[in-house]
This record gives sequence, structure tokens and C-alpha cells, in this order.
Amino acid sequence: MPYRAPLADFRFLLGHVVGLDQVAATERFAEATPETVEAILAEAGKLCEEVLAPLQRPGDLHPARLENGVVRTSPGYADGYRAIADGGWVGIAASPEHGGMGLPMAVTTAVNEMMSSACLSLQLNPLLTQGQIEALEHHASDALKALYLPKLISGEWSGTMNLTEPQAGSDVGAVRTRAEPLEDGTYAITGQKIYITWADTDFNANVCHLVLARLPDGPQGTRGISLFLVPKFLPDAEGRPGPRNAVTVVSLEEKLGLHGSPTAVMDYDGAKGWLVGAPHKGMAAMFTMMNNARLGVGVQGVGVAEAATQAAVAYAIERRQGGPGGIIEHADVRRMLAVMKAETFSARAIALACAVALDMGRATGQPEWQARAALLTPIAKAYGTDVGIEVASMGVQVHGGTGFIEGTGAAQFLRDVRVTAIYEGTNGIQAMDLVGRKMMDGGEAAFRLLQEIEDAAETARHRLPDLANDVWAASEALREATETLVGQEMQDRFAGAVPYLRAFARVLGAHFHLTAAVTDPAREPLARVAIRRLLPEHAALLAQVREGAAGLYALSPEDLAA
Amino acid sequence: MPYRAPLADFRFLLGHVVGLDQVAATERFAEATPETVEAILAEAGKLCEEVLAPLQRPGDLHPARLENGVVRTSPGYADGYRAIADGGWVGIAASPEHGGMGLPMAVTTAVNEMMSSACLSLQLNPLLTQGQIEALEHHASDALKALYLPKLISGEWSGTMNLTEPQAGSDVGAVRTRAEPLEDGTYAITGQKIYITWADTDFNANVCHLVLARLPDGPQGTRGISLFLVPKFLPDAEGRPGPRNAVTVVSLEEKLGLHGSPTAVMDYDGAKGWLVGAPHKGMAAMFTMMNNARLGVGVQGVGVAEAATQAAVAYAIERRQGGPGGIIEHADVRRMLAVMKAETFSARAIALACAVALDMGRATGQPEWQARAALLTPIAKAYGTDVGIEVASMGVQVHGGTGFIEGTGAAQFLRDVRVTAIYEGTNGIQAMDLVGRKMMDGGEAAFRLLQEIEDAAETARHRLPDLANDVWAASEALREATETLVGQEMQDRFAGAVPYLRAFARVLGAHFHLTAAVTDPAREPLARVAIRRLLPEHAALLAQVREGAAGLYALSPEDLAA
Repeated sequence: MPYRAPLADFRFLLGHVVGLDQVAATERFAEATPETVEAILAEAGKLCEEVLAPLQRPGDLHPARLENGVVRTSPGYADGYRAIADGGWVGIAASPEHGGMGLPMAVTTAVNEMMSSACLSLQLNPLLTQGQIEALEHHASDALKALYLPKLISGEWSGTMNLTEPQAGSDVGAVRTRAEPLEDGTYAITGQKIYITWADTDFNANVCHLVLARLPDGPQGTRGISLFLVPKFLPDAEGRPGPRNAVTVVSLEEKLGLHGSPTAVMDYDGAKGWLVGAPHKGMAAMFTMMNNARLGVGVQGVGVAEAATQAAVAYAIERRQGGPGGIIEHADVRRMLAVMKAETFSARAIALACAVALDMGRATGQPEWQARAALLTPIAKAYGTDVGIEVASMGVQVHGGTGFIEGTGAAQFLRDVRVTAIYEGTNGIQAMDLVGRKMMDGGEAAFRLLQEIEDAAETARHRLPDLANDVWAASEALREATETLVGQEMQDRFAGAVPYLRAFARVLGAHFHLTAAVTDPAREPLARVAIRRLLPEHAALLAQVREGAAGLYALSPEDLAA
Repeated sequence: MPYRAPLADFRFLLGHVVGLDQVAATERFAEATPETVEAILAEAGKLCEEVLAPLQRPGDLHPARLENGVVRTSPGYADGYRAIADGGWVGIAASPEHGGMGLPMAVTTAVNEMMSSACLSLQLNPLLTQGQIEALEHHASDALKALYLPKLISGEWSGTMNLTEPQAGSDVGAVRTRAEPLEDGTYAITGQKIYITWADTDFNANVCHLVLARLPDGPQGTRGISLFLVPKFLPDAEGRPGPRNAVTVVSLEEKLGLHGSPTAVMDYDGAKGWLVGAPHKGMAAMFTMMNNARLGVGVQGVGVAEAATQAAVAYAIERRQGGPGGIIEHADVRRMLAVMKAETFSARAIALACAVALDMGRATGQPEWQARAALLTPIAKAYGTDVGIEVASMGVQVHGGTGFIEGTGAAQFLRDVRVTAIYEGTNGIQAMDLVGRKMMDGGEAAFRLLQEIEDAAETARHRLPDLANDVWAASEALREATETLVGQEMQDRFAGAVPYLRAFARVLGAHFHLTAAVTDPAREPLARVAIRRLLPEHAALLAQVREGAAGLYALSPEDLAA
């Protein structure tokens, strides 16, 4: 099934729902006019449809492999990557100072979604490089920036993120990798890292690792961790890759999906590294990279949802069974496809709204926008990836028996997307971030957003009274639950965190669907699916928020193991 | 992670929740005393723990393969199968007349669940044979019974089910396979069948195919289909396998999971077959087999849910991260494990209640019991397998990054169980069966069940007032929705079928949890998870039932493809 870039949806959402015009009205992003954005998305869409989508299946069938310590990538990936780099897509959001396009995250997000639809395993490579570019832009010395950024932005070199160690999964504070200061001002990095995505390639002239490690005087926990840039080849002053650094790919993991993306165990044996940011402040720098990557991963989920929906709709139109039309005429198939379509739209709108908030926060420096972006990031990540998984699984179901057979692609979507709910902070961690750190303002950012949703519902009431009323009432229920939540102990918040995040996403999704339907009557039927059929789930989710933690801890580990 | 048979849960559910005592009080199943059942389950549990569970991973790594037209099975499967057959487990529910144990389905269901936990891909083989035994017991001539049943019951031979053809997935009426009468009273079968599970093995001396085909005078549609028994080797009068029949395994599918279970394309080229049942009445006979298999498949989901929960709990107790205890101390991990445990219990209780109803229907001939079994079968199938998938996916999530790596087993559970929502009638078809055929009584069987649930809630009110009240109110809501449903046009019913089925399962699961908590206070915490956190979903699901079909068809295929 050929992938078609959903350009009309992007145009509509950016233009009429999430407000790209505000972004284009800022000085920083003045170039992001509707015409420019339209042309850019069309160009990226063409690349995804024609060059990247055909690589999805070969990457699954012929996984990246390790040969004599070097990664050999899947067939066609080198050419596909070259097309991405040549198009300037690696540096799409990077500062023009070092060769980037300097486009808003809203545009980057749309491009990343299309690449995720087309070939998720390959797209991970530039996604990680984008995160590294951002971390270096914010935290590296001018010398490091001058040496590395042009190569990363052009896509000549790639970037990785090295957090996880065998004894410390999501617990970054437990990092044991050591950094010993050398006389020349650099550091010798020693330790082992796991789950390193795109740790090596045969199409990047250099691979630059951002590594969390502990200086000799680094205190215990996350406050004693520093960030280092460790290139595979040590570049000379002109940026020509020179001697091999003491960093080795030990092995590649055999994974459920994303076979085209090599996931490595890495060994650092006194490898030469450069400090990025201040000593012991590595977590702050890493969070820059992770925050960017979190939205990017959420969008991976949206991309897979879009591609899986397209494939399922095409199958259901073609496939005849017990009637003159395709199985799309069967009520339950129609229901599944409608839900897939509605959920994909919701997740996409949330991701783009998050991107707009990021752009506005950067362009204006206004704390309200920054708080909005911070609030929406964990929702965009967790909901986008949950939708990716659920929609891919429904896609398998629509395909019936065919869905269980490898080769149709339906199963691959599910296998590939499953990890997106785990990496870049599990969705449980995203939810804890939402109810913990992001509610340290007493819920102020949340209440401000809910007020906007309710105002929009009020405005919509004369056009679509029943839908507007449902959205308004759900937002009110979420407001009450948020008031309860911010009064809870942290343990109680955490116990309801995942349901709370999903309820928030339900309300947001319904709000964006309502806005879409008010603007364009042709979008009312899908909005009706989202609001009448899916939104009611919020009440059940918020019931879990009110339960707190005590009921869960009434079950001991022994009870659960019994 | 070693599998441990949940014998205590079976003992409790059979003894105190679903009422095996009623079954044992019948003449037919008088031997199923608590002591006998306990001993049988312990024996089966031992087999599953010690012999079958170690085969799960090798079967995944070394799929069954086709060599010169013959299937070579995964390492150890022949020995594992022999242990199943030698234990008498293939014929556990079969009539003693031909060598079966004649045990109730309630006991068979528990045994099948344990085998599904231990090695799902191998368990499919005896499960299909069980279905064939039942079909032959009900519909075959005495001569066929005498020749085939002893071999199938002993496990020497195996049985398959051949429904699907390339042009007709779930639409059995479109079958094109032809059956030409021969002079000796047998038939020449010609056609192609797909998705044939365990179509061939290297450890069964014969493989007996039940094949749907059309006689020359067979009318179009399902009313023109007959059922034939087509053995791989033509047996002589003493049941010694003789000449090879004209049936060939063309190819095996490469699947998302269940690699140890060969799934074949089969070619019948004038193969010799024997008519089972009356001409043109093949669907009725096949439904016997399918009805049995539907409960069996639901239980496959429960089995995987149990095994995935055990693995996740063990991992979460062991895995340390950011604290002195295992990650089981984290609120969101605790939440996931509690939900997994509660859902597994609900699905198991529903399956066992369905089995008890089947047993009572057979033993007493009372139409009320038969209607109860008919009502519960699609719920047990769809909910059991949905729970299998959801719990396996949560198991991956609990494992974090490790869950995405093959070899831990967490991913395999998800891959293996995914098809259970598709085969034996997709879960959408189960739901349509529930709201269509199973409501042709105007909802009488459903209302009778809801009355029992409400009576039980009334009784529970003095002990657990809040939980009892929640269950009572949810049952009332389901009653109202059922009243709405039976007044709807069929298309509207179908549009809400899947949500309705799930809401029904939510109420049933809560009811069984409440019964458990009333009987055994130690079970109250888990009941509280099921009733306070999961049951509220019923309202959102029933809202979808009320929506009907119009909203879905307001979205045209073009809208969905746009």
C-alpha cells in the first residue's frame, strides 16, 4: 500500500486549528508563511512517498547487522538517508547560523511525522541528530559548536544519545560511567551503555555520541552527572575525521521491531570526550535533548497511526466479503476505521499544538507559552505513541487473518511502534512528569488551557450545540479532577497519572475536533465520532484519578505474585 | 521466568464462584468431585510447568518448516505432544465410549488455559483435535466414529479445521471447494484452503482434515455447504494408515507469532473424503466444532494473560531502579500489575462460567443453561483474547526497554496472542453474534443473567456496600442498554456490538470479583481494582451502543481514505 502524505490535514490543522499564523507573526519565524510552509511540506511529502516508504519493508526483512565491529545498514538505507540529508531535513529546525533551515517546530513536527509514516527505523537516525543539534546549540562551547554543528546539520555526521546503563534503566541518577580529566582539557570516558539507537552507521562519516558520565568529584545521584561529546572519529581542527576513538559497538539487540534501526550495547574504554555545558549539569543539557525528542517520539506514534490507517482503509475498500462492496461497508469495520482516523487526527493536533507552543515560547520568551509547551510535551509523547500502538493493532484487526501474516505490513507497524511507548521515558514516566513537575504551578497552565477549551466550546455552541456541550462538560470534569489532583500526595497522583494523562488527551482531542468541525462542516462527522464515541471515556479515567494509591498498595507484591 | 500453574485460583473459582458443584451434582458429570478435579488439575499443571513451558521459546526461535511437502516441527514439540497425548489430555472432554475422560468443560477449560500459558503454539494442535472430536461425536456416522474417534482421542492422530479460502475470509458462504460423489459412497474433494492451523505434523501418525465443500447440487451460500472428513493417509478398516490421500501442504505462512504452529495453504486435488452429517448441512456441523473452539480460543487469551502477568510481576519484583525495592514499588508499575491481575481473573471467571453453562446444558438439557452458554461464548472468546492482548502489551511495558528485546519472552506473548482476536471468528464477528443471534430471544437470556448479578449484589451489600452498589448500578445500566439494543435495527446493533460486548464483560468481571471478595476477604483488594478502576468504563462503552450506525456511515469510504 503506497503511503500518501496527509498534506491537506497539515494545511488545515496548521492554518485553522493550532494557529501557525501566530508563529509566522513572530520575528524569529517570519519566513514561515503559509506558502513557504506549503511548499516545504509538499517537498518533504514527495520524499517520504517516493524514496522512504519503499524502504520500510526491506529494513524489516534485512535488519542492520554488526560485522567486525562495524554496523552494516539495511538495503537502500544509505540512499534514503542521503536523500534526507541532501534535502536539508536533518537541519530543518536548526539555527541558520550553522546551516540549518531555522524553521519552526510546527513544520518540523509535520515533516517528522511523514518520515515516521514512511520509514520509522530510518527516521530515528535524523531524529536523534536533531536532538543532539539542539543540545549543542544550547549548551556546547563555541568551539564545539563551530566544529560539530555544520556536520550534524548537513547530515554528514549523525548524533546519538547515551543515557541508559545495564543497572539503571530509567534511573539516570544511577549512572556509573566515569569521566577522568586529561591534561589537554578533554576527558577519558569509561563505561558501558545500552539501548543506544543508531550507535553506528555505514553512511555517516562520523557518529557523535552524547554521553552521560560522572566526574571524579561528581556527587551521587543526578546532580553529579555531566554530559560529554564523544565522536567515533576524532576530528581535526577543520572537521576532518581522524583517528578512531576508543568507543566500540559491542553487540546489536534482536528486537520486536525497528529492525532497520541498530540498537547497540556500547563500550567506552577511555574514549576521548569533550564536556558539554557545566560540570555536574549534564542532566539539564540532556533534558534539552530529551524534551525535543519526546515530542519527536510522540509524532512517531502519529506517523505510524497515519500509515496504518491508510493501509487499513485501502484494504477494507478492496477486500470483498459477503457483499457487493468492500468490508468497509460492515459496521464494525467502519467503526474501527473511523476510530483510527479520529484518534490519528487528535494525536496529530495535540503534537502540532505542542510544537506551536514550543515555537511561541522560543520566539516570544513568554512564560505562558513555555508552560503550555511543557504541559503538552508529555501528553503529546504518551498519547501519540499510545495512539500509534492502538491504531496499528486495530489495523491488524481490520486485515483479519492477513494481518497476522508478515509481509502485508500491518503487523510490522505494530511491532515497530510498540517501543515508542517505552523509549524517551516510558509513558508512565511521561504521566508522572505531567502530574508532578508540570503541576508544580498548582495546575495554573492546565487551568489556563481548559479555560481556552471552554471558551472555544462556548463559541461553538451556536453551531454544534450537542458537541460543544459535551466538550465543555468534559473540560469541566477535567478541571475538577485537576483540582483534586493538585491537592493529592505525590504517591496518589502517580497512581492516577496514566489515566489522568489520557483523560487530558481525550479532552484536548475533542476540543481540536470541535474546532475543526466549526471551521469546516465536512469535518463534523469525524468530530462526532471523537466526541460522541471516544470522549465519554474521560469519566472512567478520571474515576481512577480519584482513587489514589491506597487501593493499589493494598495489594502486596506477594498478592500479585500469588 | 518459570510458569506456575494457578491451581489455587482454579480451585477457588470452580469451588466458590462459578459453581462446579452444580455440574458434579449431575449424573453425567458425577465423577467430577472436588478431589478428582483437584488431582487432575495438579497433574495437568505439572505437565505444563515442567514439560510444555520450556518449549515456548524454542518454538518461537525455530519455526515449523516445510521440507519436501512435509512439516518439520519445532525442537522438542514431538516429545511435548507425546506427553500431552499420553496424559490423556487430548480426549479430556471426549466421551468415554471411545476412550475419552468424559470430564466437564469446566475442567477442560482450566487444563486448556494452563497449556496455553505454557506453550500456546503447541496447544493449538490438541485444541483443534478436541473440536474435531466433538464434531464427529455429534455428526459423524457410527462407522466413522468407530474408526476415527479412538485415534483422535488417544492423540495418535490429529484434527484440523478447513474453512477459509483465499476469496472468502470470514464469509464461509463463499466457499468454492467442490465435492464430487464417487461410486463407493465417498467424495472427491477439490479446492484450496488457507490459514490451516497444524495442517501437518511429524508426530501424528495421521492428520484428519474437516473440510467445508460444496456438492454439485449445493445451492449458493451457506445453505449449500457440506462437511467432509479428509484424512492425510487413507486408513484401512482396522485404522492403520494406508495410502497417501491427494491433499498437499502447499506452503507455510510467515507469521507475527505462533511460529511453532504451522499455518498452511492446503491443496485438495480430488482427495478422498467422507461426508460428515447430512448433505448441505455442513455449517451446522462446523458450528459445533467452532463453538467449542471459540471458548477454547478465549481461554488461550486468558492463558497468555496469566503467563504474561506472572513474568511481569517477577520482573518488577527483581528489577531495581531508583530505590531499595523493585520497580513493583512504583505506583504506575503497581497499577499496571494490578490491572493485569484483575483482568486475568475476570476473563478466567467468564470462561469458566461459560464452561459450567455448557456442562449444565449438556447434562440437564435445560434450555436456560443452553441459552446461558450461547450468550457467554462470544463474550468469553472476545474478552478473553482482548485481555490476552492488552495484558501481554502491558507486560511489555512493565519490562521497559527489555520488553522490546526478543528473548525475554514479553514480546513473544504479545506476538503469539495477537491472532487470537482474529481466528475462530474475529472479535467483531463474536460481538455481532452476541447482539444478533444471541439476542433473538429479545434479550431474555441476558436479562436473566443480569437479574442474578443484581441479586448477588443485593446479597453482597451488607458486606461490601460500595462495591456491591457499583456492580448493581452497572448491571442496571447494562440492562437499559440491552433494552435499547434489542429495539434497534440490526445495522445499529452491529455498530455498537464491540463496545456492548466489552461492557457486558466489564459487568460480568465485576460481578465475579464481587462474589470472590464476599467469599474470601483476601480477594477484596483485587476486586476493588476491578470494580472501582475498571468497571466505570462500562458507561463510556454503553454510550457508543446508543449512538447507532448513522454517525459511522456519515463518513464515506472516500472520507476515510482522504
